[in-house]
Amino acid sequence: MPDTSQYRVSANAAVDLASIPTRHGFADVRKSGKRLARQRRRIARLQERLFASSRTSLLLVFQGMDASGKDGTIRAVLKGVNPQGISVTSFKEPVGEELSHSWLWRHWLTVPARGQIGVFNRSHYEEVAVVRVHPELLAARGLAHPPPQEFWDERLSDIRAFERHLHVNGTHIVKFYLHVSQEEQRRRIMRRLDDPKRQWKFHSSDITETALREEYLSAYQTAIAATATEFAPWFIIPADHKPTARLMVATVIAETLAAMAPEMPRPGPDALRAIASFRDSLANVPEDKGRA
Amino acid sequence: MPDTSQYRVSANAAVDLASIPTRHGFADVRKSGKRLARQRRRIARLQERLFASSRTSLLLVFQGMDASGKDGTIRAVLKGVNPQGISVTSFKEPVGEELSHSWLWRHWLTVPARGQIGVFNRSHYEEVAVVRVHPELLAARGLAHPPPQEFWDERLSDIRAFERHLHVNGTHIVKFYLHVSQEEQRRRIMRRLDDPKRQWKFHSSDITETALREEYLSAYQTAIAATATEFAPWFIIPADHKPTARLMVATVIAETLAAMAPEMPRPGPDALRAIASFRDSLANVPEDKGRA
Repeated sequence: MPDTSQYRVSANAAVDLASIPTRHGFADVRKSGKRLARQRRRIARLQERLFASSRTSLLLVFQGMDASGKDGTIRAVLKGVNPQGISVTSFKEPVGEELSHSWLWRHWLTVPARGQIGVFNRSHYEEVAVVRVHPELLAARGLAHPPPQEFWDERLSDIRAFERHLHVNGTHIVKFYLHVSQEEQRRRIMRRLDDPKRQWKFHSSDITETALREEYLSAYQTAIAATATEFAPWFIIPADHKPTARLMVATVIAETLAAMAPEMPRPGPDALRAIASFRDSLANVPEDKGRA
Repeated sequence: MPDTSQYRVSANAAVDLASIPTRHGFADVRKSGKRLARQRRRIARLQERLFASSRTSLLLVFQGMDASGKDGTIRAVLKGVNPQGISVTSFKEPVGEELSHSWLWRHWLTVPARGQIGVFNRSHYEEVAVVRVHPELLAARGLAHPPPQEFWDERLSDIRAFERHLHVNGTHIVKFYLHVSQEEQRRRIMRRLDDPKRQWKFHSSDITETALREEYLSAYQTAIAATATEFAPWFIIPADHKPTARLMVATVIAETLAAMAPEMPRPGPDALRAIASFRDSLANVPEDKGRA
């Protein structure tokens, strides 16, 4: 099993996505399905404890270019979790009420409550990724564009403060950037065009945005470098090979939950006495009355 | 008309509430009712433009001890405003879902949208005021108490980041601390005990909390000093004399709205052409058809 820490971005280090591989150095594909299933069971078991103890929460952020595998990874890695304890929010282009508030507002609305796993499928990072590549999107908020450099620094600093606040208040945060090569991305988008079962996922922006790869890489690596903190780490996951990418994501999540060490809450002496007394009273119900 | 800037707390200055008067140096009471009405009309007029332009918003924060006059001031100062453009949130002790999230969460839910005036009757400052005086309240969030000093510094720094973010994204913020003397506070609470029309406002905590005046003053002045910024100023309003206190609050709000200079949106050339054409088509409806 490869060490997941190799994918973790060090705080205060520069990030050069072009030099980071999009494929794992290992390819023992045969067993990756079984290993993924094992991590999934581990996540489900730990999530149950997180839910029962209800003291802390976990926020998982998924970013990556179109066709980098966000949806599929979320499904494959988290489908074993009790739906009562998890909620996935997919952030599309902001509309209506979302535009009437500051850009962080809609993300605040769906941060996980204690005991919950919250998943952001795309996230507040879109505001420093797609919006940075397409500053004309700022017009929807009544803002002039392009904005000065400080505008983006301000947003990144807001993100750090947001995540730091959540962390201090009991939300553990893990962020994944699914890193695909240009060739693999093209191959997947091509498949969306050809495969009737995948055509619903195709959007004409898939083509236009692919051409802006350099701009996206630049925005992402700036954002990742500025927000890779001890309290909200980024993992850059080589995502050209889906089975291993999913295994890595699952392993990071399981390790994070294990480190959070959620314990099943133990009843106190009063609760134990009450349990014993209720057990007696239930055991002593006369058979007849019990049937009535 | 006294200059409102005398009540504004300078950024980075120490605050000593005990040395700040709870009574205005002027007492031309006769005209304060008329003057308040004038400011109220000014607020209503400016709010209409804020609403129509829908570009920025205004957040008004009201803090102060029990019986300092928060409810009455909000009513007296803002009752002229179109209710569609204003919403008041009264924050009580957090419960249920509010406790399942970080302490800032419920405040995020009700920040004003563009074009709106949002009023916080008590606010996120309770988390560094009443909670600081009663650290045992932290138990409701599963936190140990008393917490270390850094805990409060952290909260104050979170508040600065929160308010800075709102400001940068178009929300103007004004914060009022209604400053009453111990004698006046006691007199008002006594009236709650005696006057049948006021008894519903009485709560036994009114008595216990009055005894903690020094602790509250200390928590408030620390919080005010740490969060008196250019972008989210505090005004310490002498509040022993209600009519002048209300007049001062109204004047500050009117001045803030005037400085925001909301303009009625002007139709562009396309809209003007469309308006002209619609006017023609309405004017040219034959009388008979118009009645049909």
